[in-house]
Amino acid sequence: MNLFKTIVSTAIMTVAVCVPAQASNVILIIGDGMDDQQITAARNYLYGAQGHSILSTLPIRSAVQVLTVDEHDPSLVKYVADSANSATAMASGGITSRGRIGTSANENLDFKTIIELAQESGLKTGLVSTASLTDATPAAFIAHVNDRGCQSVKHMVDYDDKGDRFIDCSSDIKQQGGKGSISEQLADSQVDVLLGGGLKYFKRQNEANNQILLAQAQANGFEYINKLSQIDATNSHKKLLGLFAKGHLPVRLQGTDGRIAEKSSYSFLNFFHRYLGTVTLPEIMTCESNPEFVKQNTPDLKDLTQLALKRLQNDNGFFLMVESASIDKQSHKRNPCGSIGEAQQLFETVQVALDFAKQHEDTLIMITADHGQAAQIVPNGSMFDAYGVPVASPGFLARIKTPEGGVMAINYATNDFSYEEHTGVNVPLFANQQVSNKKGEIMFTPLIKQSNIFDISKAFLGL
Amino acid sequence: MNLFKTIVSTAIMTVAVCVPAQASNVILIIGDGMDDQQITAARNYLYGAQGHSILSTLPIRSAVQVLTVDEHDPSLVKYVADSANSATAMASGGITSRGRIGTSANENLDFKTIIELAQESGLKTGLVSTASLTDATPAAFIAHVNDRGCQSVKHMVDYDDKGDRFIDCSSDIKQQGGKGSISEQLADSQVDVLLGGGLKYFKRQNEANNQILLAQAQANGFEYINKLSQIDATNSHKKLLGLFAKGHLPVRLQGTDGRIAEKSSYSFLNFFHRYLGTVTLPEIMTCESNPEFVKQNTPDLKDLTQLALKRLQNDNGFFLMVESASIDKQSHKRNPCGSIGEAQQLFETVQVALDFAKQHEDTLIMITADHGQAAQIVPNGSMFDAYGVPVASPGFLARIKTPEGGVMAINYATNDFSYEEHTGVNVPLFANQQVSNKKGEIMFTPLIKQSNIFDISKAFLGL
Repeated sequence: MNLFKTIVSTAIMTVAVCVPAQASNVILIIGDGMDDQQITAARNYLYGAQGHSILSTLPIRSAVQVLTVDEHDPSLVKYVADSANSATAMASGGITSRGRIGTSANENLDFKTIIELAQESGLKTGLVSTASLTDATPAAFIAHVNDRGCQSVKHMVDYDDKGDRFIDCSSDIKQQGGKGSISEQLADSQVDVLLGGGLKYFKRQNEANNQILLAQAQANGFEYINKLSQIDATNSHKKLLGLFAKGHLPVRLQGTDGRIAEKSSYSFLNFFHRYLGTVTLPEIMTCESNPEFVKQNTPDLKDLTQLALKRLQNDNGFFLMVESASIDKQSHKRNPCGSIGEAQQLFETVQVALDFAKQHEDTLIMITADHGQAAQIVPNGSMFDAYGVPVASPGFLARIKTPEGGVMAINYATNDFSYEEHTGVNVPLFANQQVSNKKGEIMFTPLIKQSNIFDISKAFLGL
Repeated sequence: MNLFKTIVSTAIMTVAVCVPAQASNVILIIGDGMDDQQITAARNYLYGAQGHSILSTLPIRSAVQVLTVDEHDPSLVKYVADSANSATAMASGGITSRGRIGTSANENLDFKTIIELAQESGLKTGLVSTASLTDATPAAFIAHVNDRGCQSVKHMVDYDDKGDRFIDCSSDIKQQGGKGSISEQLADSQVDVLLGGGLKYFKRQNEANNQILLAQAQANGFEYINKLSQIDATNSHKKLLGLFAKGHLPVRLQGTDGRIAEKSSYSFLNFFHRYLGTVTLPEIMTCESNPEFVKQNTPDLKDLTQLALKRLQNDNGFFLMVESASIDKQSHKRNPCGSIGEAQQLFETVQVALDFAKQHEDTLIMITADHGQAAQIVPNGSMFDAYGVPVASPGFLARIKTPEGGVMAINYATNDFSYEEHTGVNVPLFANQQVSNKKGEIMFTPLIKQSNIFDISKAFLGL
């Protein structure tokens, strides 16, 4: 990237006028799990079935192939990703196995990320997320570990916080020549702006000298805030670490009285044969404000993004990743209102990015998802109700009264466990402008690979 | 539409040279139920996870809002469509209720279709489908009835063929001032090419004089064939009715030994608590040729399309709708290999259309789906297997060995009935060129309404 474009007056050859070039910026906005079902459900609820979200105002639309390989035999393809391997693909172009952060399947080699490349060229960088910053999506832009679970020193070779799953990141331990846990790699990093959740991880000790990670981050030049109002007391020339929740940020919306999708109930007769008796679908709910979001004085994603943009704007350009993380997390938990509220946060954030791009033309905005999710919009009452037999989803159903007066039914039925699965569908991508490679070929073709998002960012920033 | 463009030589003013204008043609290719899950599954199986289908070579990609209203109160929105109301929207721009063919919800007024408009302007028209031609999608381009079930006189006010559902099309009976059953309206029509299934409906009597519908169609100027090889004996200036199966055409592929998705089975211990015991997923299958497709000497959709294009090509232009119908029908039946084979038929048909457009530049090709379907690509083995509890879909699962050596798992879990539900997701649209309206505004914006497909066809054909 040229820092300056030199314009030489051809009329007065003795005077060379140097003007600062327009810096190139990339804003990558990731809706975690935001596949077309999620986009449609949020559109239906927020703007009506005939309405439009801000996504449909963007001129470029593409679909993204989500690519995953087997950990033990990376030549073998897997058809469903998680946020760790999909964020790794977007951040570094590396196709890897589920659970890995910035490292290759089986061989465990580090992939260089767009943030590392940008920093080497003097660009500013930032990460904003409604999740803990140690969570897979933001982590994959900076950290390199064996397993997304290694979020703090406490869990390098141990069960996770809930005691459900054993994690082994022994090769990532600093004393073993590794780079340490994800939180330690964030604290060690040169990222200019880090805004999100995950305070509990930064209150744990580091590996080297038992220092609290927050102190280590401060020693590394970060100013720390935990409320947006503290920003005025910070030095805008220093690195910024904002941690606004212990773990993930609370979500904006919930179902009536905190209700999520539920099982339909069958009458007694149905016990004898599935075509007998009647079925009662879950009661209709609406979406309401989540008290926890209000109580914790949770900042909006759009405000965090606004702050990040203010800090990152500079003559050399920047790369910023913004994640609305809980579209996915709320779908795992079968909470459609939760997902809808976080899609709304993403839409607002896109508006902030577009407003910024109006003032800074050489800004590429991409909005995409990392993988598909379980939720499906299904008929409210079966299409086969006229057949006179009780028909309902074998999974969990939520029926939501929409502001336009309809009832939207959302089905979650990928498993009977506590958390739904991801799906392997192509995910959508929207962008505010086309990008060409050095050969002049357009890069947003109708179908791109997830790893192309890294290539496109690199090309646009001239890295 | 101008039939001729007049080129006047400016050099020799005495000679006016008239050359026929390039006729404008529209080929609308509908993959019934072909949402992004179906496209991704077919791509994974046929071309590999990193492969490309022909759809990704098309320069225009958009998403389509599928719009449905309540039959009793059309001001009330519904979030999931069926093929009848969605085909009606594409064919006529009319937004209606599920089950309706070319008529408005509640008021039962006829919508004028693109085929009727095209015929009035002297364009040729054609319908090709792998379904019975009386099925909802092709029907909606010609017929106007109260209910998609009214396929022949036998079922105007009666139970359907299977005896499952009562149908009332009394207002469509000719003696009541209606236009008759769907098959009778097809036989009465001026469509130049009708190719598909549904012979059994045309072997039934008509309303007026107990004539067999096939004879009525022939009296109306149609030449009838039931094998592609008979085409040489026909007169290419006459209307063509090709019926290649009693009902829907058999599909090309099936699962190993005809297997479809199955329930996973839990061990005895699981009966006591869902976290106890083990789960066995359905055995892995491959996709194989469907013997019925071969036995019935079923024509390929691409060959039917090729024939239709040959017949329709003329100086005034044409409108052709081609449907790969059983992507949807096989998903209803939980047969992923069936859907994949029919997506393959669609891809081949797109190639035929693109080849035609190379020779006839003023040809608009649109490929879209009418609504979403139940199938979801899920992990092969839960993402939560490491938790050590038995986890599986509560619905039906198929695990397919792909030619590239992976195992793709497809979940069907929208209900426990014999047929899966549709979903309300936006569906994709691909086109070979951009279209502008009279104001010069582009019509393929990133999100269009399903009814816009009618508007775009109209604009492109100058109707």
